[in-house]
Amino acid sequence: MEQRKVGIAGYGNLGRGVEIALSHAADMSLAAVFTRRDPSTVKTLGAPVYPMQEIANHTELDVVILCGGSATDLPTQTPELAKTFNLVDSFDTHAKIPEHFAAVDAAAKQADKVAVISAGWDPGLFSMQRILFESVLPQGETYTFWGKGVSQGHSDAIRRVPGVANGIQYTIPIQEAVDAVRTGTNPTLTTRQKHLRECYVVPEEGADQEAIRRAICEMPNYFSDYDTVVHFITAEELKANHSGMPHGGFVIRGGETSSGTRHVTEFSLKLDSNPEFTASVLVACARAAVRMNQEGDSGAKTVFDIPLAKLSTKSAEQLRKELL
Amino acid sequence: MEQRKVGIAGYGNLGRGVEIALSHAADMSLAAVFTRRDPSTVKTLGAPVYPMQEIANHTELDVVILCGGSATDLPTQTPELAKTFNLVDSFDTHAKIPEHFAAVDAAAKQADKVAVISAGWDPGLFSMQRILFESVLPQGETYTFWGKGVSQGHSDAIRRVPGVANGIQYTIPIQEAVDAVRTGTNPTLTTRQKHLRECYVVPEEGADQEAIRRAICEMPNYFSDYDTVVHFITAEELKANHSGMPHGGFVIRGGETSSGTRHVTEFSLKLDSNPEFTASVLVACARAAVRMNQEGDSGAKTVFDIPLAKLSTKSAEQLRKELL
Repeated sequence: MEQRKVGIAGYGNLGRGVEIALSHAADMSLAAVFTRRDPSTVKTLGAPVYPMQEIANHTELDVVILCGGSATDLPTQTPELAKTFNLVDSFDTHAKIPEHFAAVDAAAKQADKVAVISAGWDPGLFSMQRILFESVLPQGETYTFWGKGVSQGHSDAIRRVPGVANGIQYTIPIQEAVDAVRTGTNPTLTTRQKHLRECYVVPEEGADQEAIRRAICEMPNYFSDYDTVVHFITAEELKANHSGMPHGGFVIRGGETSSGTRHVTEFSLKLDSNPEFTASVLVACARAAVRMNQEGDSGAKTVFDIPLAKLSTKSAEQLRKELL
Repeated sequence: MEQRKVGIAGYGNLGRGVEIALSHAADMSLAAVFTRRDPSTVKTLGAPVYPMQEIANHTELDVVILCGGSATDLPTQTPELAKTFNLVDSFDTHAKIPEHFAAVDAAAKQADKVAVISAGWDPGLFSMQRILFESVLPQGETYTFWGKGVSQGHSDAIRRVPGVANGIQYTIPIQEAVDAVRTGTNPTLTTRQKHLRECYVVPEEGADQEAIRRAICEMPNYFSDYDTVVHFITAEELKANHSGMPHGGFVIRGGETSSGTRHVTEFSLKLDSNPEFTASVLVACARAAVRMNQEGDSGAKTVFDIPLAKLSTKSAEQLRKELL
């Protein structure tokens, strides 16, 4: 099978996940990892490590998978690297997607490269289901539930509360709400009715736990619109029981065709490792980026623009025979 | 919004479903229904009815949605109509998809039209999930469950049993099997462990019910590999309780990234009306067929070849803003 040479830009949890996902991809091989750290301090599963500033010299790469963060890395990295490479990123700051798309599109078109942005599972697989469900059942309502899983933003927020030494926050979909949506009756649900927030907090010695609990539960934007449960635990318990990165969620649409004739479409994910699964989506999209570019396409793309066949290693004939 | 003129070829349950689905499509209007019956005997919700043999004259149509059966109608109709129209069919004889694709592809390429074959939910939405799941999680196993819903082929089979006046067969996924698959442990399941077959039979007067039950349960290919339950009911009960056309099912994949790190992806449908939902998928694919053709594409296509954005009435900008 043809081997595409892949580069990973940024080697944290997501980058390591991409390395694992590439080991299952018969048509791609990891050629280089790029880091802003001292390369001699980065241990991969075998791929050579180079300084990030040398990446543009590696024109042998067929595609680069960007594994930096959406807050500060990707807004500059993606448009910059799209001048040289086909690429995929997981940019997930929803409000800024239009401007990110525009910046990446200009660079990629100029360079005749394909740059897939905002891949992963949300945005990503969940987005694909939302467009599919709405297109098939225009009369209806789509609901997205997240969890049970760790929200990095909410975990950061509780760690900023005075008296908190460490902590983690799980977003949990409320079962009654999921069940109500599954009936297809399209209930009106408040923020509080859809998700619960559960926090595991390691207090500093002598901290006022009741004050911490109040500060968390009343925090605007992050917690005040939710029912929030705060558990106080030790640093050892946090490490032993909350070091995994599970996640998941549901996209459900209830729709009607003729009056009273209801249909419910549902997609769900249950993930042992959020970064490893996200990485697996990025790898499939990297395959698509290379192929779309080989067929003459260029510019910024999202999962809405990728024909599903391009995600697979199988030929069109094989796909029609085995999976249709 | 731009209005695409749509024709319906064949006006049974599926054709009526397409008419309903088109009433929810802001960008498409039903221009003509074609039938092999006497047009004066066909009552639509308002669209004019023409004899099927006149369809090729209606070159004003942007796309035709074929609503005939896979056994005898579509193998000849689809390649024939692809000489004149962009079109969509729901050809679902899995084993014959390669030859159907080839015949339609030749005609559509010659005519510079786009012909989407095998749309609906299986083949169709289920196929899309199978390719998506397998591409993202190459190390794993995909399971498809159907039902609870009526199988036309199995219902026909029981109606051929001596002593049976009428009857209907429901395919039912076995909950224990679905639950086992959802754990992500990829169990080995026999045919009997995955689905149950439940039959509602109206016996002829004086018929030997035990003989009917045996004839059904022991019927090779259709029933002998399954646990089958046979209920005897009256013609009135059959009409009152079994005239709906509900269906549904599940596609579930369990996959691993690193060793022991499991992920489960699941898609499910719960449909009040199989033909109305199938029709809704055909209409979204008809939209895509027209657009792909407008962009210069031609030939036979499947759901694997359609970028999801093409299924939606929304602009690329709106999609990225609202659904990504």
